[in-house]
Amino acid sequence: MSSFPNIKKIRYEGPESSNPFAFKHYNPEEKVGSQTMEEILRFSVAYWHTFTEDLSDPFGSGTALRPWDRYQGLDLAKARVEAAFEFFEKLGVRYFCFHDVDIAPEGSNLRETNQNLDIIVSMIKDYMKDSKVKLLWNTVNNFTHPRFVHGAASSNQADVFAYAAAKVKKGLEIAKELEAENYVFWGGREGYETLLNTDMKLELDNLARFFRMAVDYAKEIGFEGQLLLEPKPKEPTTHQYDFDAASCYAFLQHYDLQDDFKLNIEANHATLAGHTFEHELRYARIHGLLGSVDANQGHPLLGWDTDEFPSDLYATTLAMYEILKNGGLKPGGLNFDAKVRRGSFEPDDLFLAHIVGMDSFAVGLKVAQKLIEDQVLDGWIEKRYESYRDGIGKAIVEGKTDFHKLEEYALGLSEIRNESGRLEQIKATINQYLLNVVARK
Amino acid sequence: MSSFPNIKKIRYEGPESSNPFAFKHYNPEEKVGSQTMEEILRFSVAYWHTFTEDLSDPFGSGTALRPWDRYQGLDLAKARVEAAFEFFEKLGVRYFCFHDVDIAPEGSNLRETNQNLDIIVSMIKDYMKDSKVKLLWNTVNNFTHPRFVHGAASSNQADVFAYAAAKVKKGLEIAKELEAENYVFWGGREGYETLLNTDMKLELDNLARFFRMAVDYAKEIGFEGQLLLEPKPKEPTTHQYDFDAASCYAFLQHYDLQDDFKLNIEANHATLAGHTFEHELRYARIHGLLGSVDANQGHPLLGWDTDEFPSDLYATTLAMYEILKNGGLKPGGLNFDAKVRRGSFEPDDLFLAHIVGMDSFAVGLKVAQKLIEDQVLDGWIEKRYESYRDGIGKAIVEGKTDFHKLEEYALGLSEIRNESGRLEQIKATINQYLLNVVARK
Amino acid sequence: MSSFPNIKKIRYEGPESSNPFAFKHYNPEEKVGSQTMEEILRFSVAYWHTFTEDLSDPFGSGTALRPWDRYQGLDLAKARVEAAFEFFEKLGVRYFCFHDVDIAPEGSNLRETNQNLDIIVSMIKDYMKDSKVKLLWNTVNNFTHPRFVHGAASSNQADVFAYAAAKVKKGLEIAKELEAENYVFWGGREGYETLLNTDMKLELDNLARFFRMAVDYAKEIGFEGQLLLEPKPKEPTTHQYDFDAASCYAFLQHYDLQDDFKLNIEANHATLAGHTFEHELRYARIHGLLGSVDANQGHPLLGWDTDEFPSDLYATTLAMYEILKNGGLKPGGLNFDAKVRRGSFEPDDLFLAHIVGMDSFAVGLKVAQKLIEDQVLDGWIEKRYESYRDGIGKAIVEGKTDFHKLEEYALGLSEIRNESGRLEQIKATINQYLLNVVARK
Amino acid sequence: MSSFPNIKKIRYEGPESSNPFAFKHYNPEEKVGSQTMEEILRFSVAYWHTFTEDLSDPFGSGTALRPWDRYQGLDLAKARVEAAFEFFEKLGVRYFCFHDVDIAPEGSNLRETNQNLDIIVSMIKDYMKDSKVKLLWNTVNNFTHPRFVHGAASSNQADVFAYAAAKVKKGLEIAKELEAENYVFWGGREGYETLLNTDMKLELDNLARFFRMAVDYAKEIGFEGQLLLEPKPKEPTTHQYDFDAASCYAFLQHYDLQDDFKLNIEANHATLAGHTFEHELRYARIHGLLGSVDANQGHPLLGWDTDEFPSDLYATTLAMYEILKNGGLKPGGLNFDAKVRRGSFEPDDLFLAHIVGMDSFAVGLKVAQKLIEDQVLDGWIEKRYESYRDGIGKAIVEGKTDFHKLEEYALGLSEIRNESGRLEQIKATINQYLLNVVARK
Repeated sequence: MSSFPNIKKIRYEGPESSNPFAFKHYNPEEKVGSQTMEEILRFSVAYWHTFTEDLSDPFGSGTALRPWDRYQGLDLAKARVEAAFEFFEKLGVRYFCFHDVDIAPEGSNLRETNQNLDIIVSMIKDYMKDSKVKLLWNTVNNFTHPRFVHGAASSNQADVFAYAAAKVKKGLEIAKELEAENYVFWGGREGYETLLNTDMKLELDNLARFFRMAVDYAKEIGFEGQLLLEPKPKEPTTHQYDFDAASCYAFLQHYDLQDDFKLNIEANHATLAGHTFEHELRYARIHGLLGSVDANQGHPLLGWDTDEFPSDLYATTLAMYEILKNGGLKPGGLNFDAKVRRGSFEPDDLFLAHIVGMDSFAVGLKVAQKLIEDQVLDGWIEKRYESYRDGIGKAIVEGKTDFHKLEEYALGLSEIRNESGRLEQIKATINQYLLNVVARK
Repeated sequence: MSSFPNIKKIRYEGPESSNPFAFKHYNPEEKVGSQTMEEILRFSVAYWHTFTEDLSDPFGSGTALRPWDRYQGLDLAKARVEAAFEFFEKLGVRYFCFHDVDIAPEGSNLRETNQNLDIIVSMIKDYMKDSKVKLLWNTVNNFTHPRFVHGAASSNQADVFAYAAAKVKKGLEIAKELEAENYVFWGGREGYETLLNTDMKLELDNLARFFRMAVDYAKEIGFEGQLLLEPKPKEPTTHQYDFDAASCYAFLQHYDLQDDFKLNIEANHATLAGHTFEHELRYARIHGLLGSVDANQGHPLLGWDTDEFPSDLYATTLAMYEILKNGGLKPGGLNFDAKVRRGSFEPDDLFLAHIVGMDSFAVGLKVAQKLIEDQVLDGWIEKRYESYRDGIGKAIVEGKTDFHKLEEYALGLSEIRNESGRLEQIKATINQYLLNVVARK
Repeated sequence: MSSFPNIKKIRYEGPESSNPFAFKHYNPEEKVGSQTMEEILRFSVAYWHTFTEDLSDPFGSGTALRPWDRYQGLDLAKARVEAAFEFFEKLGVRYFCFHDVDIAPEGSNLRETNQNLDIIVSMIKDYMKDSKVKLLWNTVNNFTHPRFVHGAASSNQADVFAYAAAKVKKGLEIAKELEAENYVFWGGREGYETLLNTDMKLELDNLARFFRMAVDYAKEIGFEGQLLLEPKPKEPTTHQYDFDAASCYAFLQHYDLQDDFKLNIEANHATLAGHTFEHELRYARIHGLLGSVDANQGHPLLGWDTDEFPSDLYATTLAMYEILKNGGLKPGGLNFDAKVRRGSFEPDDLFLAHIVGMDSFAVGLKVAQKLIEDQVLDGWIEKRYESYRDGIGKAIVEGKTDFHKLEEYALGLSEIRNESGRLEQIKATINQYLLNVVARK
Repeated sequence: MSSFPNIKKIRYEGPESSNPFAFKHYNPEEKVGSQTMEEILRFSVAYWHTFTEDLSDPFGSGTALRPWDRYQGLDLAKARVEAAFEFFEKLGVRYFCFHDVDIAPEGSNLRETNQNLDIIVSMIKDYMKDSKVKLLWNTVNNFTHPRFVHGAASSNQADVFAYAAAKVKKGLEIAKELEAENYVFWGGREGYETLLNTDMKLELDNLARFFRMAVDYAKEIGFEGQLLLEPKPKEPTTHQYDFDAASCYAFLQHYDLQDDFKLNIEANHATLAGHTFEHELRYARIHGLLGSVDANQGHPLLGWDTDEFPSDLYATTLAMYEILKNGGLKPGGLNFDAKVRRGSFEPDDLFLAHIVGMDSFAVGLKVAQKLIEDQVLDGWIEKRYESYRDGIGKAIVEGKTDFHKLEEYALGLSEIRNESGRLEQIKATINQYLLNVVARK
């Protein structure tokens, strides 16, 4: 039985279409460079926001109207799987992501929870056989249940550490079973509410021990997907250890885990940490850490994680620029860790929201590709830094100089000529590329 | 002698042009609705950012290279006037704005300062005779000089109040002399550093007294331009009294000044106050207070007034939407209270920056006009609020009901049906209108 | 049966006590100035945070362990009343506050909801008879239920407006019945998610109509408590109409409601709006609008409403300074709109948290009283503004001058001498008063 | 000739003193634990804020009245040295810090600049001989001059890199000459304005090359002071590479510089990065990176670097807690990177401001010491984490477990019991310790 009976498969109709249930820019088979849009963009639906989320907020109960809400318990879990695959099919995405608690209800103890998971995982596996849809990544939710009130791997309670480990063990087994291409760790409670009662050193050491055991277990069972940390600075905790890409990288290096993990960069987490989305992507990229992306956006004036569907074309352009420069995200992808607004509570909104997200990234891809083809930014940069290609600049880059030589050189300099960075002109250029993307077709 | 010898008059070349010194979207004679772009947009150059600013910042001295910097004192002031009119002409703008201290150097006392002003005002008047350029507004700078360290009209020192009043008196006379269409008050030091040593009540009362005297004097000399307050929440002070549009309106009503003043809304000041630009415009508009606009933008991750040239097409679209709904801004305008970045220090950057600003507002105008013509948002809103057009809704709006009747009605209601606000779809629609603006031509 | 069997009545034991279940500074009978602490501080317990709240957050389910959680429905409501009065008694507070939905479960329709309310209100009334505890204020929750998804009085749906009105009608009747000293309006959903689908003018007009009807109905039934608006800038909505004290005052004046309402100022709402707590108190005070206070605190680095129990002695000192200068808050009070942290989930924490709040305000009271007695800040201010007591300053304040006279005066001035504002010295002085508060006893 | 003729040597007079020119809490010879206050606190005066700063802000020119302002050029530089040593002596501090440009004017070329430096360094050396004052650290200013508009070691211009290197070479020589105990790098322009024209990878590589050469040169000349990086997230640039302690640590590890540098943690930089001061101190401490501290504070509602003198006793207490746990800061210290407010422009304010800073840290020291002596926080923490001292917890910490064993253990668990984190009680306890610090004496 259909959960979305009034929705037909979403198709590409071009930029002039006024049909809200059509793609205007995302055309899966269209080539952009040497690959198709579908191959590059690797869109993924987030199970939690789309099939589990009720749209409650701290001051309001859930508003979501969902066809499957007439079911309960395992029946509800099954109805969601059915709805999910109908949704993937109609939307035309090839990937999805989930936490353990999204797909199956927790039982009265861990054994029962795992049994529930087995039932639903087996059902999902069956559905996947008849579908082109793959699991981009899964994870376990070690933050919602009260037992994680003081953390999971960084809990002050060893029992909680053990419980969290058992959940990740199961999570990795599910990843293996469903051939997930990645496995994600987001440490929602791995941080602190106050330093006053926190042993930060022990908590960080334990976090590293936890990750080391996860790496070992993944190897043991032959799970070959990429392991990913997901930075976020705060919320729910006052301060999270995986604050941003740089703090994750400091941690990974300190505990010699840098070869085992990459990062899952989320737009809204970047801005909450005081960085632009493109900053976090760039930082991750140039350090070889860009693994996957949680595609959403925050509201610049709100101080919490709004997880909006991406619609800002500047952000998608700059993101796709970094992603293309990274040679794509594979085996990662663009996961819509985004929820419809509380006021957009009808089932149709789930489609409308994903459409704006997919179209926005499709536009971003096209603009970014054109910027790269025309060497717009590369051209600027090549010229700006040309002084490092010979003379004293070359010596600096090649490590063939020292403070003595540099001083001698500097003493011989007359006035130094800098050139304008031309930021306003560059912004005008980006606008031109954006505005012409449709006209150019 | 030309200050910008290598720049020709900036002309419209259309969206496909790759000439950075051409307009791609701003075509002054092109009609948008019943008026030309030039009539609607009423662009103005800010004297301070373009001819006086040296691009210093709190950690760096000025970088600006300006042809007139070889002069000093009154000669410098005169060279700037010459350069300014060359700039207006080449850029094709019809308005400019200035503070007293921008155009003439302060003398060793007030009398001498006023004499300097007279010389330059007379020179500007001559230049205006031979030009189509008008003075959108002028103002006086009652914040830079150390005498204003504790405020101007809200200073704890009566002598400073008197001095500030004398400066505004002169400012109004200059406005009259140069036929300014508006006169602006921005109270950079009208606020406090700490409440601990501040008599807020007396300061607010004095501020109102000051404004009342200004109104009286403007009437006395027959200055008919619009008086404008400019909201800003903080910086340089810790807290400014004209925090935002609403606090200005509270102040104006409290002191019965609401018929004498409108507001000059600045984008970057809006965001520093925790509002979007369009919020401040909307608030001002529906309260009959939208007088003029300082067209710039801030950086969403920086907590100070960056005064960037406007380039964000979402912001310019939503701003122009409010401005069109306001029936335009006349006698106000769009003043580029914006400075080139410290790294964009060459004279050419002044043109490039204004071009991106003008083009961005031209795009915003076209998109907003099309949204209005197609009744996109109006259509949504008409439908969303239709329940207020008959029945109980009509009774509410017409004031024909009370809590008794409303309770009776509510007791008779079964479940209330709300409809989705469709925010994601609306954002997709805005993107469509933006992306198609060029293609549509 | 006791809900808090292991807690004895909290008593004052003095600053040296190491008993966490004792007051160190709050001594209800101790006189501070001419009144006792209890008379001045008028502490109130917030029913929702203390008896209803489950300590869930956007990423976690409830952790609170509450003795009454074994009950359901009306039984739960009754158990909470019982627990509440035990709590009030043991803590020694004289006031409490509630929303309708805190005290009684919603029924399947409005009539049933009202019947539930009647049952519990009657029970509360009985308990109040045997107790010194009074109702500081009540309110209705017009924001949690999905029907309020698009607002209540500012909803786009007239049925919702009617429903909200019926709830407020009942709320006012309960206020009358329980002799509430105030009635509060907090418009959690009275704002917008996006301007794109919002008719701000109609929404504000309707909000004013709603308040007008509330005023009329309160008069009709003879409810003589103070009506209060509670400013908050955002959360849950993107932007709330009652953004801060100034925007409330603009609204009240615009709709001629300024004589019917005062403000309930909340610390955490102040800081979310970009103001200090003391700013909002001062603004309200000098405009005759300071009605009551929601005593809590936010975390300066978190962008959402954390509603922490007040513990910052600087904040409580400056707040009590404004409150004493206001002649107290009566009929308002200090309501702890504060919740224990999610990690402080044991019943004992409810006492510990209120103790830190009460002690912190008791310290603030003593420090503020001493600052006033010693005329510390008044002395500074008197000296700083003395220039307004004769000469030109007096003429300004008395309205006996104009721009001509002020200019003439200013032309005659030689250099203006300002004096240091001495902010660092003032801060040192505040520290001295704080550190000596205990020693002084 | 005295620069501060009306100020006598500042002495300790105890908490009850009402003399603003006396210490109330800082008593250099008083022992706290096994050391004197002077030995622990290692206060330092920042030359730039106290002797060079003119108190201008982005909207106002300098207000500072300084006795030495009647001099110019090298004479001014010399007058400042004289004033500085008078100030150190009268205030009773043992350390100072400077940038090259603070102590001597830049010449028309690098050679001349270095000659100016030699003259003043020699004069300072003479003054130091007759004084107990030492140089805590020096640094060079590679951010103010226009040549650094696009960065110094991260400039796109190799000439600028060379010039910056020559300046640091000289800086290290001065450090050696004056026996500085540390040398600091703050990269004010080492970051970017926009990623659009930035080669982040090359810039980071060059920054590392620069630091490597600095290390080599320091070794070569036998400078044995500690090298320090100073994190700051932004301002003047949009984004600085040394964003916070964690990003510095990531950088140092990546380029194998972690053994050569420690960090100079500044309070206001911490909060601008979204961290508390104590977070940055803790992070640095547990990673062996806590080298020195810039003691100031920011305003929680302002988004720029306000560099206020520290007066918040909570902040100084938590800072001193970390510093004591670090075994002190030696060879680092507490440098007042703090400026008097623009309104506190008189010479006396320089003393008053340092007094509030020194007294605030003295209080913080005493409270922190008492918290440690009484094992208040240690006691909480020991109990909270006790599960890691035997059983499964011990196995985790000792690395003697894996996911198999942990799962087995978790499957055997019944409900997990967490305990309250007692945050409110802890805050009450901190307040007690603070309020009793004077009474206890």
